[in-house]
Amino acid sequence: MKWTVYLSGEIHTDWRQQIIDGCQASKLPVLFTSAVTDHEASDSAGDVLGEEQSNFWRDHKSAKVNAIRTRTLIRNCDVAVVRFGTKYKQWNAAFDAGICAALDKPYITLHDEDIVHPLKEVDASAMAWATAPGQVVELLKYVTTAK
Amino acid sequence: MKWTVYLSGEIHTDWRQQIIDGCQASKLPVLFTSAVTDHEASDSAGDVLGEEQSNFWRDHKSAKVNAIRTRTLIRNCDVAVVRFGTKYKQWNAAFDAGICAALDKPYITLHDEDIVHPLKEVDASAMAWATAPGQVVELLKYVTTAK
Amino acid sequence: MKWTVYLSGEIHTDWRQQIIDGCQASKLPVLFTSAVTDHEASDSAGDVLGEEQSNFWRDHKSAKVNAIRTRTLIRNCDVAVVRFGTKYKQWNAAFDAGICAALDKPYITLHDEDIVHPLKEVDASAMAWATAPGQVVELLKYVTTAK
Amino acid sequence: MKWTVYLSGEIHTDWRQQIIDGCQASKLPVLFTSAVTDHEASDSAGDVLGEEQSNFWRDHKSAKVNAIRTRTLIRNCDVAVVRFGTKYKQWNAAFDAGICAALDKPYITLHDEDIVHPLKEVDASAMAWATAPGQVVELLKYVTTAK
Amino acid sequence: MKWTVYLSGEIHTDWRQQIIDGCQASKLPVLFTSAVTDHEASDSAGDVLGEEQSNFWRDHKSAKVNAIRTRTLIRNCDVAVVRFGTKYKQWNAAFDAGICAALDKPYITLHDEDIVHPLKEVDASAMAWATAPGQVVELLKYVTTAK
Amino acid sequence: MKWTVYLSGEIHTDWRQQIIDGCQASKLPVLFTSAVTDHEASDSAGDVLGEEQSNFWRDHKSAKVNAIRTRTLIRNCDVAVVRFGTKYKQWNAAFDAGICAALDKPYITLHDEDIVHPLKEVDASAMAWATAPGQVVELLKYVTTAK
Amino acid sequence: MKWTVYLSGEIHTDWRQQIIDGCQASKLPVLFTSAVTDHEASDSAGDVLGEEQSNFWRDHKSAKVNAIRTRTLIRNCDVAVVRFGTKYKQWNAAFDAGICAALDKPYITLHDEDIVHPLKEVDASAMAWATAPGQVVELLKYVTTAK
Amino acid sequence: MKWTVYLSGEIHTDWRQQIIDGCQASKLPVLFTSAVTDHEASDSAGDVLGEEQSNFWRDHKSAKVNAIRTRTLIRNCDVAVVRFGTKYKQWNAAFDAGICAALDKPYITLHDEDIVHPLKEVDASAMAWATAPGQVVELLKYVTTAK
Repeated sequence: MKWTVYLSGEIHTDWRQQIIDGCQASKLPVLFTSAVTDHEASDSAGDVLGEEQSNFWRDHKSAKVNAIRTRTLIRNCDVAVVRFGTKYKQWNAAFDAGICAALDKPYITLHDEDIVHPLKEVDASAMAWATAPGQVVELLKYVTTAK
Repeated sequence: MKWTVYLSGEIHTDWRQQIIDGCQASKLPVLFTSAVTDHEASDSAGDVLGEEQSNFWRDHKSAKVNAIRTRTLIRNCDVAVVRFGTKYKQWNAAFDAGICAALDKPYITLHDEDIVHPLKEVDASAMAWATAPGQVVELLKYVTTAK
Repeated sequence: MKWTVYLSGEIHTDWRQQIIDGCQASKLPVLFTSAVTDHEASDSAGDVLGEEQSNFWRDHKSAKVNAIRTRTLIRNCDVAVVRFGTKYKQWNAAFDAGICAALDKPYITLHDEDIVHPLKEVDASAMAWATAPGQVVELLKYVTTAK
Repeated sequence: MKWTVYLSGEIHTDWRQQIIDGCQASKLPVLFTSAVTDHEASDSAGDVLGEEQSNFWRDHKSAKVNAIRTRTLIRNCDVAVVRFGTKYKQWNAAFDAGICAALDKPYITLHDEDIVHPLKEVDASAMAWATAPGQVVELLKYVTTAK
Repeated sequence: MKWTVYLSGEIHTDWRQQIIDGCQASKLPVLFTSAVTDHEASDSAGDVLGEEQSNFWRDHKSAKVNAIRTRTLIRNCDVAVVRFGTKYKQWNAAFDAGICAALDKPYITLHDEDIVHPLKEVDASAMAWATAPGQVVELLKYVTTAK
Repeated sequence: MKWTVYLSGEIHTDWRQQIIDGCQASKLPVLFTSAVTDHEASDSAGDVLGEEQSNFWRDHKSAKVNAIRTRTLIRNCDVAVVRFGTKYKQWNAAFDAGICAALDKPYITLHDEDIVHPLKEVDASAMAWATAPGQVVELLKYVTTAK
Repeated sequence: MKWTVYLSGEIHTDWRQQIIDGCQASKLPVLFTSAVTDHEASDSAGDVLGEEQSNFWRDHKSAKVNAIRTRTLIRNCDVAVVRFGTKYKQWNAAFDAGICAALDKPYITLHDEDIVHPLKEVDASAMAWATAPGQVVELLKYVTTAK
Repeated sequence: MKWTVYLSGEIHTDWRQQIIDGCQASKLPVLFTSAVTDHEASDSAGDVLGEEQSNFWRDHKSAKVNAIRTRTLIRNCDVAVVRFGTKYKQWNAAFDAGICAALDKPYITLHDEDIVHPLKEVDASAMAWATAPGQVVELLKYVTTAK
């Protein structure tokens, strides 16, 4: 069995790549999926459908186009990793976690200790809390290969 | 039909009371439910089960106890209102919105215009975005009484 | 048991009232629900949230506000009656029928014989096709009272 | 991941072929499915089961046979594109959209601006509204390849 | 809690009445629902919608009208009792049992010992097999009152 | 797409083989599944688990073992064909049809005209009624290849 | 809102009564449901359907009759409390917990510290672990009254 | 069709290997999945995430990490075999069985006759009870190959 792992959240550090590299180094039977992580591209995803005057509708259109991708990938994943950085609001990461919780998709949170308190609801429904990408790799290795 | 409306999110202003008062003034057929909004009480919800050394596990225990209440109330609501203030992380509000989205519960977001961009994913799945409690009252009046 | 009947579709004739009157005359154990049928009110349902420049977004906002009501009522009904008139597109009626079909809600279509062909997919998933409100009343009487 | 895209609606123009060609030109990882689009064949799909006297039952039988195909394909798709032309009732397209909405399948509508108003309920549940097949190709390219 | 019990199957003996009387004698918290058991009325349930030439379509129309009632009542019941007599095909009873099995509704079969073999699939998914209405009353008494 | 077709019901004539042969002759993209159709083997499916004194429990054990197979295959099929012969009770066929109806699996009934009346509930939820295996082959050809 | 609390597990001590008394003392909006806790009655629940030679089938019949009650009550509860005593196998309690977990029903475990290790899987899916009935009363008070 | 069989429960004897060997000897179309059966590894599955002071939280963390694997595999299996040994509590096995029951996954129990009574609820929802691995192999052979 190939496991599909959805990587959600923060896009300003290379945590995705670290996890992917770590899993490839161990040749884990894992496929990774993700939202579009190019900030520019993501914000302008709906522009092809016509320009908008208001920021709200531009964001709205792009967010819906992105949701075609993200909701489908979340639905199809076996496990999700949801990363919260120390900057920015990252409400979309918490939103993805809520979707996972309601769909009964196991997810692992990845964040520093100093934001434990505001993330307590998100962590309470998670299957694990990691602070470093390497820990996630270890978990995925154990979960998918029983080693 | 009585409509049950779950009020999620920010607990530092009186937006809940404004909506409740506005609906009562119009005698709308609406019942309100909510998480425990007393910050202290919420943080210590799990303390009766024994003290914890680490903050993570104390938060974890309390968050799970709170989830018995919140997950049940979200499941039982007809509509949710999710409020984002201008301060704090409020990841639990975005998390609730994700649960609503996955459970196909219609929700209305309530937030100022200056956080439109970080909330675009949450708003894109919402049925409406309001900036003032009075607008939410108007929506609930229209939705529940067709007036 | 009270049966809840959702009345969907055409708003230019008094078919809703005929069904309601007919059921009341027979004191059937039936409650009726419906979208907002005041055309003006329905089109402007989202205006309280702020004005829009483009017709598309005004319609979009109002349609979403209306959907809070209609999707909830369809989900809560036992049976739906979907009426197609001879004028206008009435895509919302066919859309409601599709929702009923996917949610396994039994529905009765009400339309003239001359539009049997374009409605064949909608009728094929319906539990009955009636041409007059009086027939719907008879069906509801039989279904809810076994008489 | 291969994405399966269901193409629903109008059968009198070559919009399906334009989308298929556009996606093939970009070698997108997309498979297309569709109802039977040969009008004659579709109308006579049930004839092999015996002739009918009444038009209603002939349509009924054929529509049910067609539904074996369409309902299965909609259930198996990742995304749907629903096309509304300027002629004919096309209630089956709105019906398909309703099924998608209830099954939580993301769908894109494809129609001209002059029918925005009658399609407002269908568009309000859609993830995007396009006016040209080329835009749909762009959306599919972005959604499936993150480019 | 009131328990709703759906009584399905054979209509030529008074087993329904025996169960109802037995439960009333013990004042059990039980409500009974059932298909229309008047054979004539059931067969002509669709006649109000217009006459049919062929027996198949007359049966078809009436069966669908009856299904509005039966499918809704099965969905709303807590327990079903499915009775098989020694005469007739009674495929509708086995059909109802299949619906119960797939919807995870517990059902009790009620039939003589000599048809144990052809009913083995139906019995294998049942929660109990009774041979007399009095046994069903005892089971309902135990199940609903813990006595 | 390969379509999986579950063949349910009567085991005394070669209708299964006729359908399989007809589909192979046309090279349809169809896989067939079925219960164990060897009567002896089916009745003794549970004997390996130990002998039983009573017929009821022997049947019960075997029926449950068979259900591991049949329920799984029905859940995994795209379409079912349910065959009713003119002899025997065949309650398991009607039971399978009920399961299909509740799981929203489209099914085709295959039976002679003289049992239209007792099968009216089963037929009313079917997508088509055929009287000959050749018709089923035609339907499958049309449904799976659009020809 | 009245909360329904299912009390599952050990029947040899008065933990159920302690919880019920504690909740009544605080006038909590809570209704309690439970399996039949009279051991004798539970073991002989199926005897009315006829005697059995083998212990396995007697247990089997009674367990299925009991399941009509327990599965329905679990499905209808808002919260479950699952109690593990220090004696006996109590596999039915762990079985009920598994059902709750899969149905997304929040449950609280109630057991001593010395069986933490063998219960780790059951506890990991629970919303809280209590060691005394009084703690459960406190949790229910907090969860249902926000006090 | 390949069948996926989840092997749950006791880890101190070689019953898993016996079943796997038996199925391979007969070249059955069966894939086996399982929890991590190395006791040490399983207990320390969460240690990579940081050490814990209390046994409860160490168990809790490891059990959740293990659940990422087990819940996913149970969800993906076609059939489960749940083994109860004569020693230890094995509540996790009963817990898995409850999950299977609620998810409508057919499962076979494997245990000695002397624990029939405490396992009656678990057995009552099972599709078969076997006392030896060889019987399970026979069942899987019959179920998957119809031989």
